[in-house]
Amino acid sequence: MNKVVGSLKEAIKLSGLKDGMTVSFHHHLRNGDYVINLVMDAIAEYGLKDITIAPSSIFPVHAPIIEHMKSSVITHIDTDYISGPVGEAVSSGILGKPVMLRTHGGRPRAILEGSLHIDVAFIAAPTSDDMGNINGVNGPSACGSLGYAMPDALKADKVIAVTDTLVPYPNTPISITQSNVDYVVEVSSIGESSGIVSGTTQITTDPVGNIIARKAADVIEISGLMKEGMSFQTGAGGASLATAMYVKEKMINKKISGSFGLGGITEFFVNMLQIGLFKTLIDVQCFDIAAVKSLRENPNHIEVSSSFYANPSAKSCTVDKLDVVVLGAMEIDTSFNVNVLTNSNGIIMGGSGGHSDAACGAKLTVIVANLLRSRLPTVVDSVITKVTPGHTVDVLVTEIGIAVNPKQAELKKRLFDAGLPAVEIEYLKEKAERIAGKAEKVTFTEDTVAIVEYRDGTIIDRVFKPFENGQ
Amino acid sequence: MNKVVGSLKEAIKLSGLKDGMTVSFHHHLRNGDYVINLVMDAIAEYGLKDITIAPSSIFPVHAPIIEHMKSSVITHIDTDYISGPVGEAVSSGILGKPVMLRTHGGRPRAILEGSLHIDVAFIAAPTSDDMGNINGVNGPSACGSLGYAMPDALKADKVIAVTDTLVPYPNTPISITQSNVDYVVEVSSIGESSGIVSGTTQITTDPVGNIIARKAADVIEISGLMKEGMSFQTGAGGASLATAMYVKEKMINKKISGSFGLGGITEFFVNMLQIGLFKTLIDVQCFDIAAVKSLRENPNHIEVSSSFYANPSAKSCTVDKLDVVVLGAMEIDTSFNVNVLTNSNGIIMGGSGGHSDAACGAKLTVIVANLLRSRLPTVVDSVITKVTPGHTVDVLVTEIGIAVNPKQAELKKRLFDAGLPAVEIEYLKEKAERIAGKAEKVTFTEDTVAIVEYRDGTIIDRVFKPFENGQ
Repeated sequence: MNKVVGSLKEAIKLSGLKDGMTVSFHHHLRNGDYVINLVMDAIAEYGLKDITIAPSSIFPVHAPIIEHMKSSVITHIDTDYISGPVGEAVSSGILGKPVMLRTHGGRPRAILEGSLHIDVAFIAAPTSDDMGNINGVNGPSACGSLGYAMPDALKADKVIAVTDTLVPYPNTPISITQSNVDYVVEVSSIGESSGIVSGTTQITTDPVGNIIARKAADVIEISGLMKEGMSFQTGAGGASLATAMYVKEKMINKKISGSFGLGGITEFFVNMLQIGLFKTLIDVQCFDIAAVKSLRENPNHIEVSSSFYANPSAKSCTVDKLDVVVLGAMEIDTSFNVNVLTNSNGIIMGGSGGHSDAACGAKLTVIVANLLRSRLPTVVDSVITKVTPGHTVDVLVTEIGIAVNPKQAELKKRLFDAGLPAVEIEYLKEKAERIAGKAEKVTFTEDTVAIVEYRDGTIIDRVFKPFENGQ
Repeated sequence: MNKVVGSLKEAIKLSGLKDGMTVSFHHHLRNGDYVINLVMDAIAEYGLKDITIAPSSIFPVHAPIIEHMKSSVITHIDTDYISGPVGEAVSSGILGKPVMLRTHGGRPRAILEGSLHIDVAFIAAPTSDDMGNINGVNGPSACGSLGYAMPDALKADKVIAVTDTLVPYPNTPISITQSNVDYVVEVSSIGESSGIVSGTTQITTDPVGNIIARKAADVIEISGLMKEGMSFQTGAGGASLATAMYVKEKMINKKISGSFGLGGITEFFVNMLQIGLFKTLIDVQCFDIAAVKSLRENPNHIEVSSSFYANPSAKSCTVDKLDVVVLGAMEIDTSFNVNVLTNSNGIIMGGSGGHSDAACGAKLTVIVANLLRSRLPTVVDSVITKVTPGHTVDVLVTEIGIAVNPKQAELKKRLFDAGLPAVEIEYLKEKAERIAGKAEKVTFTEDTVAIVEYRDGTIIDRVFKPFENGQ
């Protein structure tokens, strides 16, 4: 009585996977993940074609699947984020069908409502027992929270746990239960630790980033939200983390303790939990080893599914309880729309992830960004790709000024009264253009390479194939 | 942004509950539960009729709902267990439609497959935050595991948390998540502690029960299953618990440590966990205060849903990993069929609960029973109501002999070889009849008052209305 099968190929056969079906993966092993490549190689070897892959994110380490895209083993991708060679390949038009790019909250919405049907989910399992009880906090490839895999496990027709660490029954704690797992496959390694989690998360040492962070913390203070019970999320970027550092300082000075820290969790938030600045950490993904350790050991650090985190169709989700989120941007336009998907050449190199979910949920959404990025203006007339809509963004903080969304007149007045340099966003755009020159407009073909779905299921934008250099 | 509404009536109104719909409840507060009565009074006051109630169990404390059955507020019951006045009322034919009696594993099967559709689930919540994150380990009405409420929360159209202890967001740990909760209602008290959990669980002091228990432990030892990694479940009856005491003694003497203890968890099992005789406790229900405390504090004591426990349609359930279960019986017949539902007058006073689930899953199912019960034979030609089928029962242990199911020839031989008094079950029946006389056959009308559903959804028996005295 157990579910262990001898090989990935055998599990694929037993699962009934056929041409044209959809397989899914989670991305907690990030750029250290071996599982997508292992499974797709096995699927190719098994002779299947026309597979849709639905990983929650794709990283540079997944470059080998480009070969399977070329040979039509993979003909469609449905994901929340693509960085590295796969993004470039998609932008070059390698797939006939446009990629579907969702948000971290939109993905569980689509899975649970059935619009993204998963035939077979492959769950990279840092530990599993022989019945498929899985957790991510133990084992040599421990990645912490398995939040993004939970909707897949719940709804996929077949679920295959892929583990390098089989433990005696029952495995505890249980993050994904045997109730939802069909087969367990043991492989020699599911990932490379150094790529899964970095040893520490770095706060920016860039002096400009530091100026921005300090101002962003001031904005949060002046907003009136920095009070007992504040809930807080930041992105893992340097300037966002530096903002957290200044927020922490202010919280200590004001003798404030927060309610919860949310998101991808870093050592910095773990420390804030430990010293009582948060009551709870709500963790959909661990960004470093300290976060994994804390999730394993601290009962006030809890693991939640992506649906709990951000699914707008759930009966509620936790981003709706968020006071403040600090996020980055590749581009932001004068309507406060944010692009975190395409680079200045119009090539896919990211995605919403939880960006638009947190922006929508939080009472105060602060975008921190240098005025220039790779010597090009960050503030533009119109973003190349609209990912997070401007009406969900409240403030842009740059090194030379703070722009408040006109819908937040009260906040703008508060900043003025406090002597902070609140300016019009058009001023920041012009200033950037005066320094760097107006960016040359990328030109695109008429080929759609990706559809950008907002968290609620509406299509918010499309990504087109750029004209190649010299075309 | 919160889900708290002012009263039960308001929550009922908001939920859209209408005549003819189904409401559900869990039974972790057992005979201390206030919530079923409170809610049904509110539903009656709201003027609804023809409601199906689907509590996981019904206790004597729920006698007040008989009034709602008389007035057609409640016209159907779907449950796993009924003890006390409601069972007597059902047996008297108070409802037009037969009650559906399921097992603790069959109920989540029916809910998750959709054959038991719940319109509104009411979750008695020892603690909840304002978004409906619930746990049962804290608060004045702490009952521990909320395992039986989990399928309801997952599948009901609307879910209403009823709590006497609103705590700041986010409540942790989270047993039932805000993703599935629509409304939160605060009431002054959800239950009376003394009825929820007893201070301690008593091992039998009856010398006959003690003889049976000692023999049952011998049977388990001789079966060969008492070895490193053994998993074990007992009912909470005195003789079952006493068996656990002798099993514990043998495990210590043999220097064996078990894998997991399963089921409704008692202080006795908590102690076995603490001294290392189990690696893990898998808890679908806490039977006493010590179990609640252990679930709150010991990470090796884990809470699971009824689907994880025993749902035969899940991708697996944990009773299938069970080595040994020790269970009681009201009656057992010469085909080893067990009745734990109707008493000697044919009146409903129990139900399968997890009896038939554990019996089906375990490698060795031991029934412990005194030869006589209320001066009537326990071993009979044919049980009044078949609940647990004989092919899932391996051994009957009584004070005068041990009967092995003929399908277990190997075990029978082992017992003989070990010098244990293995006899034919017919011998036990005759012996009982010689002492007590053959029980007078209960006579029944042709009115079906309950349908007994086996865990897989097949109908295993029906309960008829007995002829009244003098008829």
